[in-house]
Amino acid sequence: MSSWKDNIRKVTPYTPGEQPKISDVIKLNTNECPYPPSPLVTEMIEKMDTERFRLYPDPEASLLVNELAEYYNVKPEQVFVGVGSDDVLGMAFLTCFNSEKPILFPDITYSFYDVWAELFKIPYKTVALDEQFKINPLDFNKENGGIIFPNPNAPTAIEMPLEQVEEVIKNNPDVVVIVDEAYVDFGGHTALSLIDKYDNLLVVRTFSKSRAMAGMRIGYAFGSKELIDAIKAVKFSYNSYTMNQATIETGVAAIKDDTYFKNTVSKIIETRENAKKELKKLGFSFTDSKTNFIFATHERMPAKEIFEKLKKKNIFVRYFNKPGIDNYLRITIGTDEEMKKLYKALQVILQK
Amino acid sequence: MSSWKDNIRKVTPYTPGEQPKISDVIKLNTNECPYPPSPLVTEMIEKMDTERFRLYPDPEASLLVNELAEYYNVKPEQVFVGVGSDDVLGMAFLTCFNSEKPILFPDITYSFYDVWAELFKIPYKTVALDEQFKINPLDFNKENGGIIFPNPNAPTAIEMPLEQVEEVIKNNPDVVVIVDEAYVDFGGHTALSLIDKYDNLLVVRTFSKSRAMAGMRIGYAFGSKELIDAIKAVKFSYNSYTMNQATIETGVAAIKDDTYFKNTVSKIIETRENAKKELKKLGFSFTDSKTNFIFATHERMPAKEIFEKLKKKNIFVRYFNKPGIDNYLRITIGTDEEMKKLYKALQVILQK
Repeated sequence: MSSWKDNIRKVTPYTPGEQPKISDVIKLNTNECPYPPSPLVTEMIEKMDTERFRLYPDPEASLLVNELAEYYNVKPEQVFVGVGSDDVLGMAFLTCFNSEKPILFPDITYSFYDVWAELFKIPYKTVALDEQFKINPLDFNKENGGIIFPNPNAPTAIEMPLEQVEEVIKNNPDVVVIVDEAYVDFGGHTALSLIDKYDNLLVVRTFSKSRAMAGMRIGYAFGSKELIDAIKAVKFSYNSYTMNQATIETGVAAIKDDTYFKNTVSKIIETRENAKKELKKLGFSFTDSKTNFIFATHERMPAKEIFEKLKKKNIFVRYFNKPGIDNYLRITIGTDEEMKKLYKALQVILQK
Repeated sequence: MSSWKDNIRKVTPYTPGEQPKISDVIKLNTNECPYPPSPLVTEMIEKMDTERFRLYPDPEASLLVNELAEYYNVKPEQVFVGVGSDDVLGMAFLTCFNSEKPILFPDITYSFYDVWAELFKIPYKTVALDEQFKINPLDFNKENGGIIFPNPNAPTAIEMPLEQVEEVIKNNPDVVVIVDEAYVDFGGHTALSLIDKYDNLLVVRTFSKSRAMAGMRIGYAFGSKELIDAIKAVKFSYNSYTMNQATIETGVAAIKDDTYFKNTVSKIIETRENAKKELKKLGFSFTDSKTNFIFATHERMPAKEIFEKLKKKNIFVRYFNKPGIDNYLRITIGTDEEMKKLYKALQVILQK
C-alpha cells in the first residue's frame, strides 16, 4: 500500500459561483459586467499577430504596466500585474504574509482570504463586522502579521470611508496592509493616493468587473517600489511568464478606451440605483451598495428559497450558506432588461 | 522605522533567457519554436467572440481538457492544465512535495526546480549527473520526499530510456514522481503509458515548444485521477480561473491540427540532425540531443566567449554561468535559414 497520499497538501478549495453551460440564463451570480468589453478590445484581437505566439511573452508585461502607470498617474515600478486579482492577491499573500503572527481580515468578506491563508499555512484571525455589516477600523489595532480587507467589502457592498482606511494603515506600519479594491470603480473612494505616503500599502484591482474582462484574467496592484519589487521576486520565482500575449494586448486596448469605461460604469451605477428602488418596493432591504451588486434580504421569504425559485426560472443570483449572511442574496447588477426580468420573476415568487 | 520588510518572503528569482526587444535578431536562446502556430489558431483568434470576455472562463477549462484527453487517449479526469508548464509544475510542487524529507532532482537540470523548492520551503537534495551528463536512475534509491526530472533532461538534451524511468517510479511508490516532458515531442519516449500502472506518476507537458504557443502559456499534465484531483484542489484554492478564454480556444485549435504539429516537429528534428553535422565540422562536440536544442562545447574557444561574440552579431544563444556546464552553450534549433546564419557567424568567430 503506497503512502504518497500522506504527504499531499490537502485543502478545501474555494467554490466559485456556478458558470451554467446552458444559454438563455440571466446570470447575476458572479459580479461580471453585463456589457461587452470595449470595441477596441475586439479590434485588437482581430488584428493580433498570431505569429508572435511562438515566442514567450514579455515577462514584465511592460506594455500593460506602462499603460496602467500612465492612466493612474503612478510610476511603472509601482505597478504589479497578474492573472486576475486572485493571482495578484495570492502572490501578495505568499510574499507579504510571512510572519508567525496571525493576519487579520473581516469575518464576512471575500471567501478566498481564508482559503489562501490555509493553502500557504498563514495563521489568521477574523475581525467581526458590526450589526450593520460595517468594519470597525479600531478592530485592526492589535498584534498581527498583516491586514487585508476589500473596500468596498464583499459581499456586503459597504464602503469604509477613506479616512478610516488611512487610520488602519497608519496604525499598522510594521505589516503590509492590502486594500482589495475590486469594486471601487462603482462609486467607491480609492486609497491609491496613499501609496506614496505609506510604503506598506498595497492596493489591488481587477479588469473583471468594471472593464468587462473577467474572461481574460487581468488583475493589478499599486504599491511602493520596494513592496512591488518583493512581490515581483516571488512571482518570478513561481512563473516568469504568466500574462500571455493576447491578454497583455487586449488589456492595453481596454485601458485606452476611457470613454467606454466611464460610460459602462455610469450605466451600471444608474441601474443599481434604480434596482434599490425596485427591490425596496418588493420588500427587500439592503446595505448602501457602492459596488456592481446588491446585498439584500427579504422581509418575509428566506433568501435560500428565493435563490432556489429564481434558479428554476433560469435566473442565477448568489447565495452563501454561511452564518450571519445566510438570509441574504448577492445580486449582480445586470442590464436594465435583465433587471426587469428579475423584478418580474421576484414579483411572481413573492406573491405566493 | 517600519519593520514590515522583515516579514517579507525573500527569494532569488529565476532569470529567464533574454527577450530582446530589438528586431532583426536571431533568437536561439529560449527554446521557442521557429515556426508560427497552426493556421487554425489564427482562424480561431479571428472568429473569437470577444463579447464573452465579460464572463469568467470555465474554471475547469473543459474544452481544452477534453481535447487533450481525446488526443492522448486518456480520461479527462487524468488531465490537469495550467498557465504554462511552469504553473503546472509550481502547483505540483506545492501539492505533492509536502513531506519533511528532501525531494530529489538532478544537479544539472531545469533551473526552476530549486527556485520552487526555496519559494515553497521544500527541502531538497540534488543528484549528480555522471561525466557524460547522464542521470543514474539508481541515485534516486534513497529516502526522499518526492522526485522530479525532465526527460529528456535540460539543458543536457539527453534522454533517459523509458525502462529506467519506470525503474525510478517503481522503486519510489511512497512519493510522487514527476517526469517533466517539455521536450519529449522531438524524438523522446513518453512515460504517459505508465500513468495507469503507477498512481504516483505525474507526466508534465507544454505547448511552448513543439506547438509554437509559448506566447499563450499552456501547460498540461497527466496522472491518476487521485493525483490530478489533489493538484486541482490546490489550484482551485489559489486561483479558480487561470486559463483565459482566448487561451482555451486557441489551445484547442492547436491540438486539432495534428498534421501541422507533426510537420513542424519533423522539420525541427531534420534541422537538428543537420546542425549536429555542421557544428561538428566547426569543432563542437555535444550530447545526443532528443530535444529542440543542442548542448554544445567547443574544442578551443570558451563557451562564454562564443556566447558574447554571437550576441554582438545579434545572434542570441543561452549560456549558463554554472559549475559543470560553464563551457557549454544551449543552442535552440531555429529555421534552416537562421541556422545557416549561425554557422556562418560561428565560422567567422572561430577563425580569429
